[in-house]
Amino acid sequence: MSRGEDTMCFEVRQRDLMARLGTIETKGGKFETPALLPVVNPAIQLVSPRELRELGFKALITNAYIIMRHFGDRAKEEGIHGILDFDGVVATDSGAYQLLVYGHVEVGPDEVVAYQEAIGSDIATILDVPTGWANSREEALETVVETARRGEALWSIKERDDVLWIGPIQGGRFTDLVAYSARLMSSMPFHIHALGSPTVVMEAYRFDVLVDMILAARLNTPPGRPLHLFGAGHPMVFALAVALGCDTFDSAAYAIYARDGRYMLENGTYRLEELEYLPCSCPVCARREPSDLLEMPRWERERLLALHNLYVCLRELRAIRQAIREGGLWELLALRARSHPSLAKALRKLACYSDIIEKCSPTSRKKGVFIFSPLDMYRPEVVRFRERLLRRFRPPTKRVLLLMPYTTGRPFSRTPEHDSFFSTLVARLGAEGAKQVHLCLLGLPFGITPVELDQLHPLSQHEFPGPNWGFEQWALSLLVAYVR
Amino acid sequence: MSRGEDTMCFEVRQRDLMARLGTIETKGGKFETPALLPVVNPAIQLVSPRELRELGFKALITNAYIIMRHFGDRAKEEGIHGILDFDGVVATDSGAYQLLVYGHVEVGPDEVVAYQEAIGSDIATILDVPTGWANSREEALETVVETARRGEALWSIKERDDVLWIGPIQGGRFTDLVAYSARLMSSMPFHIHALGSPTVVMEAYRFDVLVDMILAARLNTPPGRPLHLFGAGHPMVFALAVALGCDTFDSAAYAIYARDGRYMLENGTYRLEELEYLPCSCPVCARREPSDLLEMPRWERERLLALHNLYVCLRELRAIRQAIREGGLWELLALRARSHPSLAKALRKLACYSDIIEKCSPTSRKKGVFIFSPLDMYRPEVVRFRERLLRRFRPPTKRVLLLMPYTTGRPFSRTPEHDSFFSTLVARLGAEGAKQVHLCLLGLPFGITPVELDQLHPLSQHEFPGPNWGFEQWALSLLVAYVR
Repeated sequence: MSRGEDTMCFEVRQRDLMARLGTIETKGGKFETPALLPVVNPAIQLVSPRELRELGFKALITNAYIIMRHFGDRAKEEGIHGILDFDGVVATDSGAYQLLVYGHVEVGPDEVVAYQEAIGSDIATILDVPTGWANSREEALETVVETARRGEALWSIKERDDVLWIGPIQGGRFTDLVAYSARLMSSMPFHIHALGSPTVVMEAYRFDVLVDMILAARLNTPPGRPLHLFGAGHPMVFALAVALGCDTFDSAAYAIYARDGRYMLENGTYRLEELEYLPCSCPVCARREPSDLLEMPRWERERLLALHNLYVCLRELRAIRQAIREGGLWELLALRARSHPSLAKALRKLACYSDIIEKCSPTSRKKGVFIFSPLDMYRPEVVRFRERLLRRFRPPTKRVLLLMPYTTGRPFSRTPEHDSFFSTLVARLGAEGAKQVHLCLLGLPFGITPVELDQLHPLSQHEFPGPNWGFEQWALSLLVAYVR
Repeated sequence: MSRGEDTMCFEVRQRDLMARLGTIETKGGKFETPALLPVVNPAIQLVSPRELRELGFKALITNAYIIMRHFGDRAKEEGIHGILDFDGVVATDSGAYQLLVYGHVEVGPDEVVAYQEAIGSDIATILDVPTGWANSREEALETVVETARRGEALWSIKERDDVLWIGPIQGGRFTDLVAYSARLMSSMPFHIHALGSPTVVMEAYRFDVLVDMILAARLNTPPGRPLHLFGAGHPMVFALAVALGCDTFDSAAYAIYARDGRYMLENGTYRLEELEYLPCSCPVCARREPSDLLEMPRWERERLLALHNLYVCLRELRAIRQAIREGGLWELLALRARSHPSLAKALRKLACYSDIIEKCSPTSRKKGVFIFSPLDMYRPEVVRFRERLLRRFRPPTKRVLLLMPYTTGRPFSRTPEHDSFFSTLVARLGAEGAKQVHLCLLGLPFGITPVELDQLHPLSQHEFPGPNWGFEQWALSLLVAYVR
């Protein structure tokens, strides 16, 4: 079969930061993104695929390698949808994760491609070579090259035209290799790309590294193709991943955590025994106390914990989609960044890319912005103002630069103070003299604003509780007090 | 009947900041605090008292004045629990709010006391005189004095000994009057105190003023008596109110918002039409979309919205109780402070009282603390370290003060670097010389730490993503770039 065309399977209807609200269409149906695809292990089902569907998951992911070992040819006859009893979209991973964890897989890349086509996966993955974390740069490069070679091989092996193929991106923590891998894979007509091997980075809470990895992948793949993030299972990181341009992620965490007695929330994780109250209103928690769960038979408890974890994931996805819709993803991101200092670090890393993110973000938002912390000065609306002031605004060629503190009315140019100020100017200097004055407003948080620009968003529409104390001041005051 | 004893009705089992996790015991049963008492208007019941009980509310509040007008003597015969069909704790407000809103009430203070006793309220309120917001200082003082006079009158009027009486505190935005009112009311054997008239302050988003008001009331009433906050209906402010020492609050907001099509969340409010997704997992929202609600008959929609609002309130109360239990209320407070700049302002105001709050907060917490922003330096653990360093620690009388930057290992005094450092010191200066060196570690966020103290909590147990940029730096850099 010849190399396919770059089929359009992804429709974007709204953007915010690098996030997209969209739809992925497959032969098995379509689903909205950003989306979490729960990982289903047919051998251990705390929550059945049918229940996942009822909860609102329209797509799930399972492991072709495990299906092959458990069901063999039966899956070819009944089809993966039949085996799983799921009438939504079924994506299959290739077993590369097993390769990463166990170091070997007994089947070859061609066989995995053929098997996924045979069982009728809607979205399928080539058998890539995960980079992992501990590898040297040379080893990492090898995984990138070998993954690309297998990607290249796909187009002569594959027989169906209705399967969406995922082209995994490797390179691990070597972000230049991630970028290289992304460019290699982008040169082939994959429908979806996926960033591999982030699990170790996430488990080590190196979310700042994750920012670099995701952006290296995102910025080097065609924007028209969705980006999948493998193994991003905790709702705490969803907003970050989405803000960086990930459209889908998959997770077995809801079940793994449940089997380990761990209770997920948007801001972190509790062990069930640590809880005296269930701080959640999902159908599992609404009328229960932790003791109700602890006293249950183990299987039932794990099942309910898995359901709770899924409800929290769904709630977070809805919050993210709503945020994208209204241009409020930055607020959500900043809120989640308070879950853990390592997420706060990641947000600062993201802020280093604020120029790029600004360019991806739509300019239509007209809602007022809240400025809580200096980090909020790196949100697209403020970056845009800065750019506009420094690059696009030509200061009038006047003889006098007059700096004046902000008054309380906003925008100043529409206040009575503005009018009386200019009347006074004309009265004192004459009409010609007044024309020689370039008035700029001075103050926090925006520093300086030529009066000509002060109706710009967000100058005229922001709320600011005033500058915060700095760490340096606090530390210095203690130092001085102690030394005295 | 003679002046009663100061009956113990409130048991505290855990503290954090000025918050208490406790139990209030009444003749009608007991309930856990912090608690929200939903306001029930028997004339308009979106959610029936029986349903409230099933949702988990063990206490509610209704208006004695409205009950009197609607049910008159029937309520005396059937009792308020019978009228409402509620087998939990029933508190009654006196109608003072109606006085505030409509400016007149047709019944006198004595009659309201007798009526509440007659209908069997578990918790009752004298007919106080709300201060409101617009009043002058003189008028405010009058309301304080008249409320105290009515409080004094109670003890010769009341006939039952099994009712818990609320002594309302007035004074409005004049915090010295609030303090005065609190002292006046505290001199009488009320079981519970309540801060009146905060509604206008809250509606104007002047949460910073609310901080002063609550603390003026809390710090001038006996800690053994619960403090109620009238009309604090939005889950966004629960954590703040609780952290300042409020034990209970009441709210009609869940229903008022619902009738107005408003959807509450911990971080704010949406109009239902603004939502494309329901970012919540409560039984109302879990399997619905906004359109499902919008297409319903009005009554049903309002009812479900009220239920959702109640679920969110309950979830937040559970989160608050869990936070108190584990000593994490500061984190929750700081998270909620990102809901709106005016709440961020309130947190800064609260930080001004950090010395007092530190003294109320237990010292037992040993969990690591997260330092996200300079405001976190005002949490009790850090205030305690500062106090300890400046007031209780006697710097050794040595001849040399040696300042050294923090190393990565914590606590430094248990690292190999520490040992090799002192070995070197002894090798260079001799044992006697080394004894003359007072070593302090220098760095952010804690400024300076004598090595003798560096095993103190939270020095050895904190996570810090590094100092943040300051607003001033950002603004200055823009100013310089523009002027250039």
